[in-house]
Amino acid sequence: MTAGKPLIALDAMGGDGGPAMTVAGAARVAARDPNIRFILFGDEGLIAAEVARHKALGPCVEIVHAPDVISGEDRPSQAIRRTKTTSMGMAILAVKEGRADAAVSAGNTGALMAMSKLALRTMAGIDRPALAGILPTLGKHNLVMLDLGANTECDARNLAQFAVMGAAYSKIVIGVDLPRVRLLNIGSEEMKGTDTIRDAAQLLREAEHLHLSFEGFIESDRLGRGEADVIVTDGFSGNIALKTVEGTARFVTDLLRRAFTSSFRSKMGFLLSKPALHLLRVHLDPNNYNGAVFLGLNGLVVKSHGGANPHGMANAIGVAKKLAAERIADRIAEDLAQIATKAAA
Amino acid sequence: MTAGKPLIALDAMGGDGGPAMTVAGAARVAARDPNIRFILFGDEGLIAAEVARHKALGPCVEIVHAPDVISGEDRPSQAIRRTKTTSMGMAILAVKEGRADAAVSAGNTGALMAMSKLALRTMAGIDRPALAGILPTLGKHNLVMLDLGANTECDARNLAQFAVMGAAYSKIVIGVDLPRVRLLNIGSEEMKGTDTIRDAAQLLREAEHLHLSFEGFIESDRLGRGEADVIVTDGFSGNIALKTVEGTARFVTDLLRRAFTSSFRSKMGFLLSKPALHLLRVHLDPNNYNGAVFLGLNGLVVKSHGGANPHGMANAIGVAKKLAAERIADRIAEDLAQIATKAAA
Repeated sequence: MTAGKPLIALDAMGGDGGPAMTVAGAARVAARDPNIRFILFGDEGLIAAEVARHKALGPCVEIVHAPDVISGEDRPSQAIRRTKTTSMGMAILAVKEGRADAAVSAGNTGALMAMSKLALRTMAGIDRPALAGILPTLGKHNLVMLDLGANTECDARNLAQFAVMGAAYSKIVIGVDLPRVRLLNIGSEEMKGTDTIRDAAQLLREAEHLHLSFEGFIESDRLGRGEADVIVTDGFSGNIALKTVEGTARFVTDLLRRAFTSSFRSKMGFLLSKPALHLLRVHLDPNNYNGAVFLGLNGLVVKSHGGANPHGMANAIGVAKKLAAERIADRIAEDLAQIATKAAA
Repeated sequence: MTAGKPLIALDAMGGDGGPAMTVAGAARVAARDPNIRFILFGDEGLIAAEVARHKALGPCVEIVHAPDVISGEDRPSQAIRRTKTTSMGMAILAVKEGRADAAVSAGNTGALMAMSKLALRTMAGIDRPALAGILPTLGKHNLVMLDLGANTECDARNLAQFAVMGAAYSKIVIGVDLPRVRLLNIGSEEMKGTDTIRDAAQLLREAEHLHLSFEGFIESDRLGRGEADVIVTDGFSGNIALKTVEGTARFVTDLLRRAFTSSFRSKMGFLLSKPALHLLRVHLDPNNYNGAVFLGLNGLVVKSHGGANPHGMANAIGVAKKLAAERIADRIAEDLAQIATKAAA
């Protein structure tokens, strides 16, 4: 990255909102940061039409035509054969070839992960990359959780490495000095859970001088209580937990809507409560926590929610920008050396 | 069970509410069903004092003194040595020895599970028992989910057996004729998830004449949408999902409370909305879904929430009563024969 001039490769065709949403998101970022530059990959005509609608974007975008698009139904194994011709694949290749500092896509997660792994390769010292996301809490800081689904099965070393990567992410994106890291488990006592989790805890307890504070296990009913800055888990459990949070939040707000429309009196109450309920919606809106990252690759790839709006896309681009500026890979490498020494001993 | 005369063994000392809560719960059931009988295990003096406060209970309880109590901190491995002297253990032994139709406890889950397994043993055809619970949905029926934490790791055969047990539970306790069963997974496509889950799906697809309709995978953001009557998973993921639901529901209602107290206007709105918000609270109150069951044992043991109120305890006793009356073990055995034939083929 040219100092202070981040260059983001954008898959303009990904997500439910397509080029209109992606370009509007980029425009929001450009309006705040005139130094940012974008390469937009996708249907040239469609993208140019959208770019024309946003004055702020004009001077800082380059459009590169991509003849093909990855759909939500495409299997990862098929998608990787189309890396060179798709908007998603071409954005990743721009990172690989040093033409961009990070890639952002709102497209098919499995395809994005498979393409990114294949094109960028896993960084030295990391056995497996992980998908890290941000969740709201009632505490001072938002929470980083990983892995959210890149690896269905993990060993203790994988989990310890995720802890290091997640802590670096928390420090850079959330701004926590010494992140409190916990392993997701089905009990908080030391003997709970699987051998893998107990071994990972052992590795983290023994490792010294890590840029994190390991604080044992956490149960999933405490996710949002602000008792951890980073929660580490395998991709299966992480995906289950993340989607259960999303589903339950929607469940409760649906119930709330039903309750509020159940009588004239409660409808009146609803009108009076609107500003309060608006606060609730803001707090639960996934657009405010948008931007999950594949950590542990030789290059930055950020995944936006498929249903993101321009505000959400701007947040995902913001995450990419911060991680690129702060050189997250270097920070992770420092801590990894610690873990590697301990695991070998 | 003497026909129509269910006899429930109650651990009167379990749970945060102790004998006062347990006895009050039993009294609620007795007020509705004069045929029910209880054996209350625990501190004789404390229990007798509570029983004296509930007229309905007098004619239908027997009190058996238990000198010892299992606490929330006791490890399962230590608890099992105290089966014969604790209120929890003695309630389970009453089931084992045929002196009661079911045991109900609000105490330490791990201890209850370990004691129950050791005393009652696993039923023929079942490799491992599972903990099954009930969750609210936006659909017509509540949902049965299992395993909620009895087995941290499971193979495909275990999961297929859980499906059969969960379906029997749904039929008897929820009243669903042909329960729609789904496996919890991190994607709904056939190739998603671990080998274990895909193999379990294969077993369930191939088994014929089961008393259930197997409908593939479900993701955890769809738990409460009414798209399944039974959701099957290993105890680790199930515990994560269940506790994430509980934690997120509390998170959202905490946010709501904050929102409602943020201004005078929203406080007024809150007052007007009280009946609506009451409905919400009823729908989310775990007391209304109380009573998780250890399925697959030679004998019925029901776990109540530790924080249950008398209404919740009455619901847990109600679950025990229904399962005993409908002879759930026989229904499970029929379907198991199907699975066993397929797995051996």
